[in-house]
This record gives sequence, C-alpha cells and structure tokens, in this order.
Amino acid sequence: MCSISAFLNPYMMTPHLQEARNASLRSKVTVVGSGNWGSVAAKLVASNTLRSTSFHDEVRMWVFEETLPSGEKLTDVINGTNENVKYLPGIKLGKNVVADPDLENAVKDANMLVIVTPHQFVEGICKRLAGKIKTEAEAISLVKGMEVKVDGPRMMSTLISQQLGINCSVLMGANIANEIGQEKFSEATVGYRQNKGAAESWVQLFNTPYFNVTSVQDVEGVELCGTLKNVVAVAAGFVDGLEMGNNAKAAIMRIGLEEMKAFSKLLFPTVKDSTFFESCGVADLITTCLGGRNRGVAEAFAKSGGKRSFDELEQELLQGQKLQGVSTASDVYEVLSHRGWLELFPLFSLVHEICIGHLPPSAIVHQYSEH
Amino acid sequence: MCSISAFLNPYMMTPHLQEARNASLRSKVTVVGSGNWGSVAAKLVASNTLRSTSFHDEVRMWVFEETLPSGEKLTDVINGTNENVKYLPGIKLGKNVVADPDLENAVKDANMLVIVTPHQFVEGICKRLAGKIKTEAEAISLVKGMEVKVDGPRMMSTLISQQLGINCSVLMGANIANEIGQEKFSEATVGYRQNKGAAESWVQLFNTPYFNVTSVQDVEGVELCGTLKNVVAVAAGFVDGLEMGNNAKAAIMRIGLEEMKAFSKLLFPTVKDSTFFESCGVADLITTCLGGRNRGVAEAFAKSGGKRSFDELEQELLQGQKLQGVSTASDVYEVLSHRGWLELFPLFSLVHEICIGHLPPSAIVHQYSEH
Repeated sequence: MCSISAFLNPYMMTPHLQEARNASLRSKVTVVGSGNWGSVAAKLVASNTLRSTSFHDEVRMWVFEETLPSGEKLTDVINGTNENVKYLPGIKLGKNVVADPDLENAVKDANMLVIVTPHQFVEGICKRLAGKIKTEAEAISLVKGMEVKVDGPRMMSTLISQQLGINCSVLMGANIANEIGQEKFSEATVGYRQNKGAAESWVQLFNTPYFNVTSVQDVEGVELCGTLKNVVAVAAGFVDGLEMGNNAKAAIMRIGLEEMKAFSKLLFPTVKDSTFFESCGVADLITTCLGGRNRGVAEAFAKSGGKRSFDELEQELLQGQKLQGVSTASDVYEVLSHRGWLELFPLFSLVHEICIGHLPPSAIVHQYSEH
Repeated sequence: MCSISAFLNPYMMTPHLQEARNASLRSKVTVVGSGNWGSVAAKLVASNTLRSTSFHDEVRMWVFEETLPSGEKLTDVINGTNENVKYLPGIKLGKNVVADPDLENAVKDANMLVIVTPHQFVEGICKRLAGKIKTEAEAISLVKGMEVKVDGPRMMSTLISQQLGINCSVLMGANIANEIGQEKFSEATVGYRQNKGAAESWVQLFNTPYFNVTSVQDVEGVELCGTLKNVVAVAAGFVDGLEMGNNAKAAIMRIGLEEMKAFSKLLFPTVKDSTFFESCGVADLITTCLGGRNRGVAEAFAKSGGKRSFDELEQELLQGQKLQGVSTASDVYEVLSHRGWLELFPLFSLVHEICIGHLPPSAIVHQYSEH
C-alpha cells in the first residue's frame, strides 16, 4: 500500500524512484532527415530536450549515410564533431544529437517523430516505417512542397498519418534554415488537427528565445501556405525581372496571398482566415518573395523575355533541380481547370501559362489588370 | 406638357437638350494639392473624366503658387506644358487638368473634392474652405500620416468631414507616386463610411487599367493602415541595419501587421480583419518596408548603433524633414501608455523606446523574443 501510494504520489517518492519515473515518462525525439533544414531542426530540438524534463536528452537523427570525399562516413563525422559538415557546416548541433544511419533503429523508441526529408522521399520512408513505430507516437511534418493532384492536394501530413497510423501535425513559417542555424530571430507556426496537447508539446520542443513558435488548429491551412507561396514567388520573380516596381510587386504578393487563402478555403472549408496572418502565411510569403530560388529563377526567365525555358534555367542555375513553384503551379492549374475555377484564380492560372510559354512574362500584370 | 416630358424623358429630348442636361448632372472634380502624389492623382482622375460621361472633362487642381527659378509661375508652367515640372517632372498630366492658384475658386463648383496635401496643412485648408463648397459635395482624403493623440487618433477623414460638413472617404494603398506616374501596375483601396454610392464614384474616378481600385466599408481601418505602417517600416529598417536576415524582417513585418490590426480594432471596433488583406494593408506595408525613407533612415540609425540621433539623420538624409514613422511611434506610445496597453503592443512600444534612445536598436528582436 505504501509503495503504491509512493508510486502514485510523487511527494512520497524517494528522489531515485522519482527520477526513474520521470525518465520513463519523458518523450524520446527522433528527427527523420538531416539535410539543411533537418539539421537545424535537430539543433533547435536538442537545445530544448536538454532544458526540459518533458523530454529525453538524446535526440536521434536519421542520416541517409554518405561517404564524404575524405573517405569518412557522414554519421561518424556528425557524431564525432557535432556538426553536419555537409549540409550545415560551421554550426554545432548539440552533443545530445546522435546521428543514426539505420532508419528503423532511429525511430523504434521514439514518441515524437520530426519528419524533415525532401517531399519525394516521404512516401517511401513511411512505407519502410509502417508497423515499426510506437502506436502512441506523434509526428510532425516540416516537409514543404506537397503534391497537388487533380482531385485536390495530397497533404504530406495526411500521407504520414495514413501510412504510419498516427497523428501528424505540421510546422511551417518564414524559416530560411541557415539564418536559424545562426540563431537569428525567426518565427514559425505549428498547425494541428485536433490534439491540442500534442501541439503544445511540439511548441515546447521547438520554441527557443530566437525561434518563436505558435500553434493554430488548422493543419491544412498551414500546410497549404507552405506549398502555394512558391507559386506566388514565381509571380514575384516575373515582376522583379521586368522591373515593374515595388507597387506591382506588393500588389502581386497581396493578390497571391488572397488566392492562397481562397484556394485553401475552397478545398478545405475549415481553413481559417487568421492562419494567413501567421508566420506560415504572410511572413513566409514575404521571405520567399524577397529571396529564394523560385523568385530568382523566375526573375531570370522574365529577363530573357520568356525565351529561355524554365528547364534550361533550372539546369543552369540549380543544376537541373526542379523548382517547386513551377511544378506546383502546374498542379494547381490542373485542379483549377478540372473544377472550373480558372477564372476565380487569375494569378495562379497566369503563372502556369507563363511558365509553359503560352503567355509572355509581362502578362503577369497586364493580363491581370484587365480582369 | 410636351416640353416638360421632354425634359423628364431623355428619349424625347433633342440631342442638344440631352447634352445640356447630361452636362449639368456630371460631377466636377477638384484636386486640392499638387505635390508628387497630388499630381499623379490629377493625372489618374483626368484620364477617367475624359472617358466617362459621369464627370466633367475638366479637372481643376489647386496649386500652392510658387515662382520657379526661371521666374515663371508654377501654375502657368503646368497650364502651358501639362506637366508639374517641380513635383512630377517628365509626366504629362492631361490637357484637361487646369492648375488654379486660388483655393476658393478651385473648389467652388466641385462636387468631388480630392484632398491630397501634406497632413499638417489639412486643417488650415479646411478652415479656409468651410462654408465655401457645395453642400452636396463628397470628399476623399489621400493624406497619409494623420495624428494620433492621447485620446485616440485624429483621423484626417473625420477632420475634413467635420470642418467642411460633408462626407469624406479615403484612398490608401501600395502607391509609390512616381511608379504610378509611369503607369506601372498598382492597386489601391477606397475606405468609405456609409455612402456606398459615393465609394463607387470614387472607384470609377480613380480606377484605370494600371491602377486597380477596390472599396471597403471601413474608413478607419483603411486610414489607420496608412499611418501605422510607417511605425512598422522603422522596425524593419532596424532589422535591415543590423543585418538580422530575411526571417527576422518578415517576422517583424508580420508582428507589425498584427499590431496594426489589434490597435485599430481596439480603437474602432468596426474595423475589419479583411481590410488588412487589402492593398492599404499588407501590400502597402510590403512596399513601405522594402523601400521608403522611414525604413532607410531607421536602417542608418541602427547601423550607427543608435549613436546618431534621428534628428541628426533626418537633417542629413531628409534635409531636416521629419519622418512620419518616428513621430507616429511617439503618438502611438502615448496612447498605449495612457490606456495601459503597452504590454499588448511590444513592437510599437519598442520602436518608440529605440527611437528615443532608451533601448539599443538590437532590442527590436531580442526584447521582443523574450516576451
């Protein structure tokens, strides 16, 4: 009786017992992915697991193993130096980050899974993990650039949820990874479906004095912001390339934000207007339209008068990597024409028609202003 | 009988009678002010009065008379060349713009008054005009930078309305005047109080293929956007001067937009969230935080580590002209402290405290992130 009450009432526990109990209740965190943003996410998380008794100190980070030019393995170098020398050089991740090349091993004990891989790998990774993770685990997706299919967008959070059979939130925002790695001030938004408790844990896990995280119950709104902004960034790049001025750029960004909101709400009536005032909305749009490669390649495209193709420019400027904005614009266009919504979304439609060469870059405002 | 029905029924009028009647129903427009923005406004308006039968062709523009270095009078040059050589050189205003140095004469026949003078002159001009304008006239204010006093902001539209005894709407937006003068694409927002018909006339008067105008029933929201954005631009300038990166700049702009919204709604509960998605809201904020002198001088201030005063920098960079952002921040601070709202508006408060040297520029994010 006494031992049971000691177990139930922490005030009656011995320090040793209490510590053991607390340890068993602490969440174990695994970061699935170790690119630029994944490494920064691991650093953020690792600073908090050390500070808070809600988490195990150790943060496991799954690393797709590579052999570096030196002949060393990437995981060995990360574990030896606390630095991802390939994807986030010069930044210490924290000694409690453990790089693990074995995906199944990295996740098997985790209560909290942070998914931060390129979006084309998410489905394959989830298939490998199905049935191999704790049933009570919670996931959060930091993956931007989900796919939009004819019947609507295929949300990464939904894919992860369905494949793994667990709840999945998202974290998006004005988050250029290198700036956060340097501990420059930034904000982010957690979008959650129903589990407010899980959202609070994610905020606790990610929030730092230089990385301010808030949560909103609007997983689709937050996730769609992270994708659709890239279409607007392409439009902003056209305006830059044509030197149409700051008024026009601000107007195009504003119209883009309105179309992001309207499109999201038509697809998911639960999406909230207020989400677009969060970091994932207006702030991420601003960051992406000020810098970013979607804007940059679109600027080069417009400067060439549309004579050089996006394929050619991507080859030259991104070594053949594909721009998310251009492919998302194409996906969005498919949805719009399939549903008869083209006229409701002149900016989204124009971006695609310009990208495929049906209209000149200057149509971005001329055509729009005639609507 | 026949002549009466001919007068009442336009189908029975002679062409001459009909023309005379239409002419008598046409609105006469006067632009009060002829600076950079006033001249562009006259050009916009004059292109539409020629096109539409709702307006008299002639647009009268009150010009504060000046003698140019050539010895000529400014009004004579404008009327001779269709160009405001001093404030908008190189741009033709339209042959139907008539510069008039006599304020009372310029407004006496007007049904539509466009007020576009520096804000410190509005009250004096209104006092001169009281009782001298048509009682059924409608006004619109393009004046940015109204005053915020302890008991709340003193809206220019309210001042104009009260002094002249007529209804007053406002027009605000992402509107760098020179870009609009060059017919680069832009948007603007008309804010109106109750008279939707008047708002529609203003839209008809200002809207062109390159200047897209929409209207919202939220005169205070639209007008407060035009003032408060300058405070946020000062904050954005600090971030630029300290090279805090794009995430931080986007975050500060986002937080600023939220505080603009919250402050406006606390002062005027009728203010609508949706107004902040209009050109007067998010778009004008973007334009002002990308370029603009509020941002620029604040950047120089932060680069000096706050060691050079705003007074000194204004003297050097603006020839002693005062920045609206700095004085608005001071006015807003007074309202906040008077009402016990300082903690609700950390960004607005910080801008003022940094401007007066109580805090270093770096406090703009460090201090904020500790809240």
